[in-house]
Amino acid sequence: MTAQQTRSPTAEGVARAAAKIAKILPKTPLLEAEVNGARLWFKADCLQPIGAFKIRGAWHRLSDLTEAERAAGVVGVSSGNHAQGVAWAARRLGIAATIVMPVDAPQVKLAATRALGAEVVLYDRPGGEDRDAVANRLCAERGATLVHAYADPWVIEGQGSAGLEIVEQLAERGIEAPTRIVAPCGGGGLTAGLALACPEAEIVPVEPEGWDDVRLSLASGTILRVSADAPPTACDALQTPATWPINFAILQARCAFGLAVSPAEVRAAQRWAFSVLHLVVEPGGATALAAVLAGKVSTDGRTAIMLTGSNTDPESFAKVVTGKD
Amino acid sequence: MTAQQTRSPTAEGVARAAAKIAKILPKTPLLEAEVNGARLWFKADCLQPIGAFKIRGAWHRLSDLTEAERAAGVVGVSSGNHAQGVAWAARRLGIAATIVMPVDAPQVKLAATRALGAEVVLYDRPGGEDRDAVANRLCAERGATLVHAYADPWVIEGQGSAGLEIVEQLAERGIEAPTRIVAPCGGGGLTAGLALACPEAEIVPVEPEGWDDVRLSLASGTILRVSADAPPTACDALQTPATWPINFAILQARCAFGLAVSPAEVRAAQRWAFSVLHLVVEPGGATALAAVLAGKVSTDGRTAIMLTGSNTDPESFAKVVTGKD
Repeated sequence: MTAQQTRSPTAEGVARAAAKIAKILPKTPLLEAEVNGARLWFKADCLQPIGAFKIRGAWHRLSDLTEAERAAGVVGVSSGNHAQGVAWAARRLGIAATIVMPVDAPQVKLAATRALGAEVVLYDRPGGEDRDAVANRLCAERGATLVHAYADPWVIEGQGSAGLEIVEQLAERGIEAPTRIVAPCGGGGLTAGLALACPEAEIVPVEPEGWDDVRLSLASGTILRVSADAPPTACDALQTPATWPINFAILQARCAFGLAVSPAEVRAAQRWAFSVLHLVVEPGGATALAAVLAGKVSTDGRTAIMLTGSNTDPESFAKVVTGKD
Repeated sequence: MTAQQTRSPTAEGVARAAAKIAKILPKTPLLEAEVNGARLWFKADCLQPIGAFKIRGAWHRLSDLTEAERAAGVVGVSSGNHAQGVAWAARRLGIAATIVMPVDAPQVKLAATRALGAEVVLYDRPGGEDRDAVANRLCAERGATLVHAYADPWVIEGQGSAGLEIVEQLAERGIEAPTRIVAPCGGGGLTAGLALACPEAEIVPVEPEGWDDVRLSLASGTILRVSADAPPTACDALQTPATWPINFAILQARCAFGLAVSPAEVRAAQRWAFSVLHLVVEPGGATALAAVLAGKVSTDGRTAIMLTGSNTDPESFAKVVTGKD
């Protein structure tokens, strides 16, 4: 366990992260579109340079490292989007980055992470190898800092900066702060960050069916793990085995419930994003939209939906938009 | 000929258009990405609500109509994107809109125009029917105002607002005004507007091969029409038979040359936009990017590339991104 897990993330930390991020990353657009005649707001964080919101938390974490920590390098654990976020921030700051990725990660994500200059160490996700154990071993060997994909106060604060951007962008249109933010959920880093950023908003985490451990954890009041026989899912970005206490403490205080969406609902959301918003959204980045389109969450004119990632390969995307998958 | 063609568009008009547009349309993002190691800027106007930059000129034109003109309605001529722009602005202002569209326009564009509440009148583009004649007849019958897709000072000024946004967005990143803007070109409305907006920048219009009448007109010093045996092109948005004097006067003064790109170069650009920028770009919206990727235009760190439209059907897009077309 490394030092960064010993403090709690704060709203002040989110504000500080947002100020740092504003200096290097322009705000992603807050797009407006109608669903069943109702106006909704779509935060297109899938348009970040690495194609995912993960760049936020990675930048906040890495840019806060001491000189000594920077010299020793960082280790990240990720199916691909956090990997690219850490690699992007590391390259920009001149830090050596090693990313522990599953052997079955999408090829586009593996290639993009390597293209950003990171060293990739593969682990056997299908075989059940413990990725955190691999990462901890690397950190111990190298004296490197672990940058967890979600169980890290800096990462949570960084992801929350998207919520502050939504508040500012709604205000620019003369609209009050959001009443509700619906967001894809893996380990709960983004949803916890949004909860800190927007204390008045209802935060709704949305997971793929069978990988809805946060939904079940919220319902039961204790952290539950994904079942060992969880179904395959196209939402590789949300295949986290369990949330962590640092995330769950915030989610439990702020989320009345979580939602799960089916593979068909996710594909319908990707098609809608293609035809209405003209965006490429990966399956895991489309779960919040899927829940809204399926009528699983109530909405109003101050509801924001997070679109969190766009790293999908052409063959898969082509099948989805043409209805062949 | 209607009154709007009797004045010249001006830089002051572009500034006024930009101020009006800023009130209802948030700036589209200026995305940063590398091409062959060089940093370039991509103006994603394909993310406008109607999926195309045409909303700019349509809004400037329609919102400047008198009460009497509004009551009599407007007539537009378009293969689809200008159609949607006029329909969008008309609905918002409570104006009746009739759009003259080719029978072979993409189904997504016909459907979207009707969904915005406009009446669509079809003309026989493949058979060579004169669309301007159809529109002029409708205007005469109804007393309606013609909103030309490019030969209109308001439309030119409105499209130019994209150039002022680029200047502001570069300034936010501490970068001086663009040295060069590369833009798709049909009739020359956008390129003329950009020329007025950015008097110091080189403006490079890019057309599909065989429909490069502006390129040939610039080279010859006189307006030339597209050949009667022009090849089929996927760039339906750029299938204009000829530019008009109101556009050509500006282009001739400001554009040293135009460029043409092949169908394969356009498809490569669409694929690059998918995988690097995560954007859906229609063929006609990707010609400027195609010219840059093909090395047909020199670039520097202050070069901006317009991505102008995203209205393409899923089957066509799927074929392009998977390399099957």
